[in-house]
Amino acid sequence: MNKPSLNTCLSPALLHLYDLKNAVVVIIDVFRATSTIASVLHNGAKCIIPVDTVPKAIEISKRIDGIAAGERDGKIADGLQHGNSPLEYSTDFISGKTLVLTTTNGTKLLHMALDNNADTIISGSFPNLSAVCNYLTAQNKNVVLGCAGWKDRYNLEDTLFAGAVISKIKEHFTIHCDSSLTAELLYEKHKDDLTGFAPNLTHYHRLVERFGLIEDIRFCLTPDVANVLVVYEDGKLVKK
Amino acid sequence: MNKPSLNTCLSPALLHLYDLKNAVVVIIDVFRATSTIASVLHNGAKCIIPVDTVPKAIEISKRIDGIAAGERDGKIADGLQHGNSPLEYSTDFISGKTLVLTTTNGTKLLHMALDNNADTIISGSFPNLSAVCNYLTAQNKNVVLGCAGWKDRYNLEDTLFAGAVISKIKEHFTIHCDSSLTAELLYEKHKDDLTGFAPNLTHYHRLVERFGLIEDIRFCLTPDVANVLVVYEDGKLVKK
Repeated sequence: MNKPSLNTCLSPALLHLYDLKNAVVVIIDVFRATSTIASVLHNGAKCIIPVDTVPKAIEISKRIDGIAAGERDGKIADGLQHGNSPLEYSTDFISGKTLVLTTTNGTKLLHMALDNNADTIISGSFPNLSAVCNYLTAQNKNVVLGCAGWKDRYNLEDTLFAGAVISKIKEHFTIHCDSSLTAELLYEKHKDDLTGFAPNLTHYHRLVERFGLIEDIRFCLTPDVANVLVVYEDGKLVKK
Repeated sequence: MNKPSLNTCLSPALLHLYDLKNAVVVIIDVFRATSTIASVLHNGAKCIIPVDTVPKAIEISKRIDGIAAGERDGKIADGLQHGNSPLEYSTDFISGKTLVLTTTNGTKLLHMALDNNADTIISGSFPNLSAVCNYLTAQNKNVVLGCAGWKDRYNLEDTLFAGAVISKIKEHFTIHCDSSLTAELLYEKHKDDLTGFAPNLTHYHRLVERFGLIEDIRFCLTPDVANVLVVYEDGKLVKK
């Protein structure tokens, strides 16, 4: 039996090169959207509605009695009280609630995958690594690992997560893709000390030196601390 | 004194993210355009005129009594007698001649860099690695290492060459760029046996399994075997 294919897309600006129609697309925004999404749903939120603008987040949250949250350029977006930190959403605060979330890169990529007719969209991050891997191996469908990057630029942390997925599930897929090989090589080199490697990343400087978010970084690089499968269905990210 | 910046662009589809106006852009198409360009000029050709279509290559070569050459999808383009192999152009054959060349990726990226107002464009490959590095360190200008990829997809061999440049000249530049860090990490891991690593690359399969071009691969991964500086001036690639 032919194995399904697995490809890694290193930037949203390259997404058009991949056929998403029959594929599961994994949205990857390690610092921090998809890590926060895993954390929020792991802590009992009802669902997350990803939206592209701050006004839309405010409008929808008012209408459904949800919580508007969002990030622009690494900090809480102007006009909002809640941001994009996975540590902001304790069970006490978020359980049973709906979060309406807008972020710089991750939610943008999700909407691009929708526009490109992805078969299925799930959200991936180190905190829910095993749930992602178990789901992908069970589907027997083609996979595109979609790195959200930073304003269309390549970033290393999303690629490292793609490499983590590949190193765990590669025997179930046909992989002829230099991006995937690069991701796996980088992950294999640094997997034993991702947090120690983090200060080399451009995004680390943005988050830690400007905003002091070292605990966010640690959480976002820790496998399976919010190990839920997150699927996009009918406009919402839900735990399955 | 502030050091100039160095960035690595992993695909032509990401070139718009970089400011080329005051930068030296290094066009990198390891398999095989920029390796062939180094070889042709090292072997005494007068110059190379890069063009974007086969009819244009034929028309110009007739007008100036040059040699039309080109590649599409890894083989000699229909309608041409000469292709994109660095081993095709011996001194006996090419010395004193003008080559009019069209290729799938490298010449396309060169024209994109022109359209984006690059300050200076040079051609880089392992065969002329030292000439490229010496030039870049002497300029004191910003640098963008432009990987030609394969039809806008990321490829590893161009990234490995970017990594080779970075590992040799990084102390002269300010580098805050995950693409550059990735390139350097990959090169440092595989620099001692690039040819042994080559069978992992998607482009290797295209060239070797379909067309038997293993000698081309070896040449293209050997540093300084055609060590000339190649600059684009007035529509022509010339040896400086």
